[in-house]
Amino acid sequence: MQNLQTVALDDAAKEIVILDQTRLPNDRRMLRLSLPEQFYTAIRKLEVRGAPAIGVFAAYAIYLCACRADGTDRDGFYREFTKQKEYLASSRPTAVNLSWALERMDGVCKDHMSEPIPSILKALKEEAEKIHKEDEDACRQIGENALTLLKKGDGLLTHCNAGALATSGYGTATAAMYLGHERGYDFHIYCDETRPLLQGARLTAYELSAAGMDVMLECDNMVASLMSSGRINAVLVGCDRVAANGDTANKIGTSVVALAAKHYKIPFYVCGPMSSIDPSLASGADIPIEQRSAGEVTSMWYEQPMAPKDIKVYNPAFDVTDHSLITAIVTETGIFYPPYSF
Amino acid sequence: MQNLQTVALDDAAKEIVILDQTRLPNDRRMLRLSLPEQFYTAIRKLEVRGAPAIGVFAAYAIYLCACRADGTDRDGFYREFTKQKEYLASSRPTAVNLSWALERMDGVCKDHMSEPIPSILKALKEEAEKIHKEDEDACRQIGENALTLLKKGDGLLTHCNAGALATSGYGTATAAMYLGHERGYDFHIYCDETRPLLQGARLTAYELSAAGMDVMLECDNMVASLMSSGRINAVLVGCDRVAANGDTANKIGTSVVALAAKHYKIPFYVCGPMSSIDPSLASGADIPIEQRSAGEVTSMWYEQPMAPKDIKVYNPAFDVTDHSLITAIVTETGIFYPPYSF
Repeated sequence: MQNLQTVALDDAAKEIVILDQTRLPNDRRMLRLSLPEQFYTAIRKLEVRGAPAIGVFAAYAIYLCACRADGTDRDGFYREFTKQKEYLASSRPTAVNLSWALERMDGVCKDHMSEPIPSILKALKEEAEKIHKEDEDACRQIGENALTLLKKGDGLLTHCNAGALATSGYGTATAAMYLGHERGYDFHIYCDETRPLLQGARLTAYELSAAGMDVMLECDNMVASLMSSGRINAVLVGCDRVAANGDTANKIGTSVVALAAKHYKIPFYVCGPMSSIDPSLASGADIPIEQRSAGEVTSMWYEQPMAPKDIKVYNPAFDVTDHSLITAIVTETGIFYPPYSF
Repeated sequence: MQNLQTVALDDAAKEIVILDQTRLPNDRRMLRLSLPEQFYTAIRKLEVRGAPAIGVFAAYAIYLCACRADGTDRDGFYREFTKQKEYLASSRPTAVNLSWALERMDGVCKDHMSEPIPSILKALKEEAEKIHKEDEDACRQIGENALTLLKKGDGLLTHCNAGALATSGYGTATAAMYLGHERGYDFHIYCDETRPLLQGARLTAYELSAAGMDVMLECDNMVASLMSSGRINAVLVGCDRVAANGDTANKIGTSVVALAAKHYKIPFYVCGPMSSIDPSLASGADIPIEQRSAGEVTSMWYEQPMAPKDIKVYNPAFDVTDHSLITAIVTETGIFYPPYSF
């Protein structure tokens, strides 16, 4: 697990160190980032990804942006802090953890505005480290809670990567898999490859098989075939934003897995920290869904284009799973069943 | 359409000429095949694919195998014919059109066994050409029948390639799209890319956009997102084998599209010639499902492996869509509604 540290602060160098998730599993390349534009691009290009990891990364990023601000004029300092906060928040729209972490950092900044700027920076650094530590603790507790829903020998299906690479520590959807593996549960893990960017094949299958679990990879469209074969006992997925009614935005394709799970009467669990829940939105219809480029579908990863030139492409990064398709939502504070009251 | 001739017999050269479907859309390479091993490999490697096209190809192939048999001993001729027939039939297990065409050719062979071998060969050639012509006629009639189920401006979703490249003529699932396009229906076509081998992106999006239709490409896991957006009015898919109760084996991923269509109350039509219906099987549980290699999922099309080395892979080529998820089955003889009686 320690080898898969996704996000770390090197405070001496005023850099964030991340494992470049676009290069796995072929290349384990570390990136050292120090400039606002690098932070923005790292989120935008998915070099760092996964809702909880984006939150931790954004907290460190806004701290380092604050370190670069003019340290003499407090009003100017806060104007620059706000500008960089809004810039980072605009990098990706769907995961609520990004704005949640930035707003939490903003609150700390405001609370300490009467103090000298070095004291404000110290408070910001401590808050970012606290967010990081809380995420690790939340992942472990999500795993403990989810594990109570599973039994030894279960076949568990997951979509995309809500694993160690997406978080700090054990992941969210994968936390019960890691804990169960440590405790001899002998799970059989099924990873959807997760088109277009293959986070399931490149990241989840990679990290879980590296941990020694029994892992099988399948294309996304094989999920109903797998379920009908009787191999799947539960589905565990992460979440980028959960609305007040339980509607859940997560990686594109999640909702069709949920439909199949309902048809085959397989429990479908959403796993995430309380920071992924956005009670300000009544339903999933209010969650902004990021649209991404055509090239991710038509040519990314390929030597040659695998679709006709200039073909129109539908490429939303997320979809919304209706609350009626979700068995329960597992957080670090407990297991929520419908009707939801967070 | 004429440019997309999938299978043709060059009788003078004793060769079958096919458009290599593994190279599209980047490379339009024609293959000329004359040996039994080449015929077997072309089916096995999907250089020729699509249930109706495999049937036509197999008919020409067994004719050319018969031409190569010893022309002096009638018993020896039929032993060789039977051996090559069984060899070709073993190339892929799921599509019933393969064995259907070979058995039809076998019937002609038996019917003419009292005649001189050149007469038998002539009858075999005529039967293969008849199968080819019948497939063209069936496709057009399937299109006419399916078009009665659609209206102008409809958004139509299809999975894999049941198009001109999979058949002779207009395709099966695509036949109503071609006819509607000729008649100003202004359909909006949505093509699932269809992992692992991307027949939807490489073949369907290619042939329909080449014909001038409005085509959009999406990853397979985006189907529920698309349907929930209200863009899809009907789903049209092909079939590799339909059991007596309507259960339909088709390209892997078809059944999850059907589940989503049912959830979003979108009609789901299976289109195919009567030769794809196998009333000898009571249900889809009896249809053999081909399992294919891991490399198709982990590395095919890629410069570098996109999954961990030696990961286990689930890779069935087909799944079975339960009859309860199918609105109607459209053939050249009419539109069948449940309960099915073919």
